[in-house]
Amino acid sequence: MAEQIDVWSTEARELMPGFKGHFVHSERATLVYWDIDPDAILPEHSHPHEQIVNVLEGTFELVMEGASHILGPGDVLVISGDIPHSGCAHTGCKILDVFSPVREDYR
Amino acid sequence: MAEQIDVWSTEARELMPGFKGHFVHSERATLVYWDIDPDAILPEHSHPHEQIVNVLEGTFELVMEGASHILGPGDVLVISGDIPHSGCAHTGCKILDVFSPVREDYR
Repeated sequence: MAEQIDVWSTEARELMPGFKGHFVHSERATLVYWDIDPDAILPEHSHPHEQIVNVLEGTFELVMEGASHILGPGDVLVISGDIPHSGCAHTGCKILDVFSPVREDYR
Repeated sequence: MAEQIDVWSTEARELMPGFKGHFVHSERATLVYWDIDPDAILPEHSHPHEQIVNVLEGTFELVMEGASHILGPGDVLVISGDIPHSGCAHTGCKILDVFSPVREDYR
């Protein structure tokens, strides 16, 4: 199976205010390319899926386990499953989140 | 577990000529940020791991199942496990590959 996707041209869904996501689902993972508004707020939440945050553009602050992580381009943060996390965008951001296993709730 | 990584500052390993990789291993996936030389050649190969190619910069041609895919920034290609693929860089490239499960051979 070969599936070539021009991901930013796919339809976006705004799952939370200020977070517009472009989604790719494979057999083992869900990728979300987020276009995030400045000052957008990510309320604290958790999910059983592992999440790997890859910041492509902008500055995003992610808080987990009592620590604040200021993430910029080239920064990667691994969040194990079921760990509560929250955050906020300091600027407009483009972020690629890798979830595994597949986020069936994002289909 | 929270692990923040400035990925381009980590030590690179040139696994194949012209392919310098920066590696992040989580519980369920291996991410490789590749810095690829212009004209670098990827010989045909396969692996049981699913691979999701994310082109960040440059132009890379990937050939699989008799089809050529010219990939630029924002293009995503899903390669199922065990599918032979090859390729070449048309320009210098930065590519993020997401492998699942973990590439134990890349540790």
